[in-house]
Amino acid sequence: MASCSHPHVFSVAHILAAQRRLTGRIVTTPLLSHPALNDVVGGRVLIKAECLQSTGSFKLRGALNALLTLMEDPSSPPPQGVVAWSSGNHAQAVALAARQAGLPAIIVMPKDAPQAKIQGTRRLGGSVVLYDRIRESREEIGRAIATDKDYAIIPPYDHQDVMAGQGTIGLEVAAQATALGLQIDQVGTAVSGGGLLSGVSTAIQATFPQCEAFAAEPQGHDDLRRTLEAGEIVANSVSAPSSLCDALMAPRVGEAPYPVLRKRVRQSFAVSDADVQKAMAWAFHALKLVVEPGGAAPLAALISGQWDGRDKTTAVVLSGGNVDASVFAPAIAVSPLPACED
Amino acid sequence: MASCSHPHVFSVAHILAAQRRLTGRIVTTPLLSHPALNDVVGGRVLIKAECLQSTGSFKLRGALNALLTLMEDPSSPPPQGVVAWSSGNHAQAVALAARQAGLPAIIVMPKDAPQAKIQGTRRLGGSVVLYDRIRESREEIGRAIATDKDYAIIPPYDHQDVMAGQGTIGLEVAAQATALGLQIDQVGTAVSGGGLLSGVSTAIQATFPQCEAFAAEPQGHDDLRRTLEAGEIVANSVSAPSSLCDALMAPRVGEAPYPVLRKRVRQSFAVSDADVQKAMAWAFHALKLVVEPGGAAPLAALISGQWDGRDKTTAVVLSGGNVDASVFAPAIAVSPLPACED
Repeated sequence: MASCSHPHVFSVAHILAAQRRLTGRIVTTPLLSHPALNDVVGGRVLIKAECLQSTGSFKLRGALNALLTLMEDPSSPPPQGVVAWSSGNHAQAVALAARQAGLPAIIVMPKDAPQAKIQGTRRLGGSVVLYDRIRESREEIGRAIATDKDYAIIPPYDHQDVMAGQGTIGLEVAAQATALGLQIDQVGTAVSGGGLLSGVSTAIQATFPQCEAFAAEPQGHDDLRRTLEAGEIVANSVSAPSSLCDALMAPRVGEAPYPVLRKRVRQSFAVSDADVQKAMAWAFHALKLVVEPGGAAPLAALISGQWDGRDKTTAVVLSGGNVDASVFAPAIAVSPLPACED
Repeated sequence: MASCSHPHVFSVAHILAAQRRLTGRIVTTPLLSHPALNDVVGGRVLIKAECLQSTGSFKLRGALNALLTLMEDPSSPPPQGVVAWSSGNHAQAVALAARQAGLPAIIVMPKDAPQAKIQGTRRLGGSVVLYDRIRESREEIGRAIATDKDYAIIPPYDHQDVMAGQGTIGLEVAAQATALGLQIDQVGTAVSGGGLLSGVSTAIQATFPQCEAFAAEPQGHDDLRRTLEAGEIVANSVSAPSSLCDALMAPRVGEAPYPVLRKRVRQSFAVSDADVQKAMAWAFHALKLVVEPGGAAPLAALISGQWDGRDKTTAVVLSGGNVDASVFAPAIAVSPLPACED
């Protein structure tokens, strides 16, 4: 996939085109709420339950849009197959997108990825190549496969077609809020490579120009926070501590999302594992949703009070639900909802 | 609430009227699917994720329709408040319905109801009166309160206005399936008092007359199975064994749902606690939904093979998600999805 297929500025037109391509192929995920969550935040909270997307995360939107765009392109021969590298959610998305297109898929995944994600990728027909996160480069392995087999690479975030697919979440949120008679004052998503938030912020700000966009990242992996402060892309330390948020481990935001994030994102919050677990517990006890640690990051920022939701209408994207039971069970053990006595 | 407010035969017209009343006040819950679930069943499985309804179960639909109908009635003075008895899901539903109507609510609940349900009722503003399931009659306690305070009783299932509210799920499923270009061959829900399945079967069979309706009940509490065989209402034994399905403990089906169930339901399946846990694990691992034991009963019947889904399109209502973490964690510990090796 040529990185210059959209050399122009990323805009809502890309996202509208993606929406036309994806219609009927993805789940329109619901926008949910809960009175106790509104109470604790002090405003109105709208939860975009994107963990209910096929493959259990938002990644299907971008992967499918990128692959469909490639297959529509009359200027290049159709690919023989696809290759991708991913800690898990993009892996499952590419496997399903390839299956829908009738193409083989090879996915390069870290050995220590959650079993839910490795097994999920295989069940969807993807061939998994495991690598060592410390000693090997997943990009080198993936590019070698692509060259050898004449497969197309589906990048996880650093491409406008992927960003446009993820942005369709923002179009849905704007339409769903409008149907409820609401305007959105602020929106937040997790950030790793930046594909999700670049798309979502572009889409929502096209409908609600005053809407502010916020990001959430794991503590120690808050490269976007430092990137926005520095005014240039800053990478995470290679010795950054581990985090529950296995899906948010990209070393830096991508070159394609960066100018969009710089223009549209007000601030990024670094969240602790404890706050992430509390957000997962809110999703379980109040919303009846299974949310993985990385997908819960923006809700963690909101309920911890770092991200101020008072007297505002806040849209929060819960972007994935691929979590092993061994991680989920301890997170939900204590209900975060306020206790009441009669 | 007079039991003769709809003395005529229950029909889809009642459900359409309920849908008009409820529009904008309830969540239109999504219809989900998963390829691995289709594979294990050998057919197409459509999951109605009603655990995502406000208050975490379908009960809001019936309670709200009953209360709104009562408040619209020009022939009787508006109630001073409402009273209900419930093991938990109807309790939360009545509390929220009363709160929306600006009325006080008193709910009679068993002392051993899940904390999630007792706390949920209180958080929604309901006053909870606890009773002893063995020694006391919840109906006597509730009726005494209603007489003393001039409150209206909102029955959990034995009333056509309640059945009509629950039936709106069936209208949504039929519309959602039609939008996917699908016909529904069979539908199944959990049954306790019968309000849910009487409404859902009536609604779906209005759109798909050939659609067969099935029920699921806990082993030892399979009174509907025996009722359908006997051709008259049969109660569960008072010494029936305990079950994980705390929401499915009504002693017998109601007088109002019974003629509808007799006419429309093909068969009822008795499911084991182990199969219920496996269904909860499917919902967690594949669908990213939190489903309580009672809400998982029809999926338990389907994945155990008792209910045959081969070569059919089957709609399964997952009717509630109010489960304590201590019950949820052991149910999801083992993934039921097939393992794959590359």
